[in-house]
Amino acid sequence: MTGKVYIVGAGPGAADLLTLRAASLLRAADVVLHDDLVPEEILALCPPSAQIVNVGKRCGRHGSSQEQINALMVWYAQEVQPQTIVRLKSGDPAVFGRLGEELDALRRAGVQFEIVPGVTAASAAAATAQITLTDRRAASALMIVTAHNIRGERLQAEGFDPRRTSFAVYMPGPDYERTARELIESGVSPATPCVLVSHAGRGSEQHCFMALGDLPFVCSVTAPAILIVGEVTRRLSQETAVFDRPLRTESTLMNEDHSPQIGCTLS
Amino acid sequence: MTGKVYIVGAGPGAADLLTLRAASLLRAADVVLHDDLVPEEILALCPPSAQIVNVGKRCGRHGSSQEQINALMVWYAQEVQPQTIVRLKSGDPAVFGRLGEELDALRRAGVQFEIVPGVTAASAAAATAQITLTDRRAASALMIVTAHNIRGERLQAEGFDPRRTSFAVYMPGPDYERTARELIESGVSPATPCVLVSHAGRGSEQHCFMALGDLPFVCSVTAPAILIVGEVTRRLSQETAVFDRPLRTESTLMNEDHSPQIGCTLS
Repeated sequence: MTGKVYIVGAGPGAADLLTLRAASLLRAADVVLHDDLVPEEILALCPPSAQIVNVGKRCGRHGSSQEQINALMVWYAQEVQPQTIVRLKSGDPAVFGRLGEELDALRRAGVQFEIVPGVTAASAAAATAQITLTDRRAASALMIVTAHNIRGERLQAEGFDPRRTSFAVYMPGPDYERTARELIESGVSPATPCVLVSHAGRGSEQHCFMALGDLPFVCSVTAPAILIVGEVTRRLSQETAVFDRPLRTESTLMNEDHSPQIGCTLS
Repeated sequence: MTGKVYIVGAGPGAADLLTLRAASLLRAADVVLHDDLVPEEILALCPPSAQIVNVGKRCGRHGSSQEQINALMVWYAQEVQPQTIVRLKSGDPAVFGRLGEELDALRRAGVQFEIVPGVTAASAAAATAQITLTDRRAASALMIVTAHNIRGERLQAEGFDPRRTSFAVYMPGPDYERTARELIESGVSPATPCVLVSHAGRGSEQHCFMALGDLPFVCSVTAPAILIVGEVTRRLSQETAVFDRPLRTESTLMNEDHSPQIGCTLS
């Protein structure tokens, strides 16, 4: 007998953007292995008896390597054998979460597991910025990429019709100049509207609409951030837009000719 | 004064894959305007006093047009003025949900709104099939497309490196032959592994691993379905894979040379 590992998406950060299934598993957890980005209010759902381990790669002086995290999951399942081991990952586990490596380790060791999907950052960012990610009138596809690719590849946008594709760039910073340049070199016009969303779905979210060409001039963005690029981020107009709370950081709507009226700073 | 519209993602279908925020809004709802795909167990969260309206496009003889849905939201907000109007959409509202058109209508009418993100079908399908969607070793990007594009466009895959991209094809049927052909003509090898997931996250889910070239031979899939294509769907091996429940519909692992051992049928 071994324990069972539940690989659970914690969603974008706000405790009430957890799924009911995730909340229920956390309330029943014996052991929780969580990433850095999972906030305290979510961990507070766990019972006092639960063993809570931060396996975040930024935790402590060195942090945990992926191999250590894999080994820890297997060790708990095979040696400690608690009933419910929750591996809690930010957002959705299947999107830029190194899920593949963790699944490989669990499968190799013969440990039972189940995956609980979560709300991914692109969805939370779109909700914060009050935009859609796809639109039958303007964007027939959504491309999810990260600017921090392990092989240092360019954003793989060559050959695409960027006018009918939305891009959600995870971890777009801190080198925004490079992120903008690579999108532009891949055929996305500098005049393409985009929105940079910081702390999407965390209650402390901020967002800034601009043209892609102005992205290098935005500074002091607090991670985690996400960049949505494409026609879906072009607002109807400031006059007709109605928001339920003031937009703290928003430049005026971009014109097609890419007027350089950028000025917002997320801090 | 007008009522406020909450555009809420219902997630993939299982009631416990709702977010806590969505569940809380449904419990407080005065009016709920919902899509066809939202199951009864989710609507059961609403109070008995709530007015529940199916605005699904398949409902009744003709269903509601998008314009009718837009007008209904605005009418409730401005004329009936209940406190909480929930516009409940399957999955995440920002992904293939015509959110852009609904936001335009609300903005034009000056109706206050808020968006609550949900778990999108690609995440639910990956959890069901126990795969990741991105993998730093094999897939640096995730492309979300639909086979039912309003302009009848091809899947926009030309020029991409399909070997390092995962594709999540929403609404891939019923013409699976066409979906496979368009991916293959766009440069995705017929030997590329894929998984077709039916009813992801609904409790009645089924999934089938195969090579893309075998997709046309799969029949009788119950909608909603989603197709994930790419190296992320290649399982380590049947021997080392451990599942917490039996896979009801799975062909054997594909070889690189595209052995034609397909035979599964989802029904």
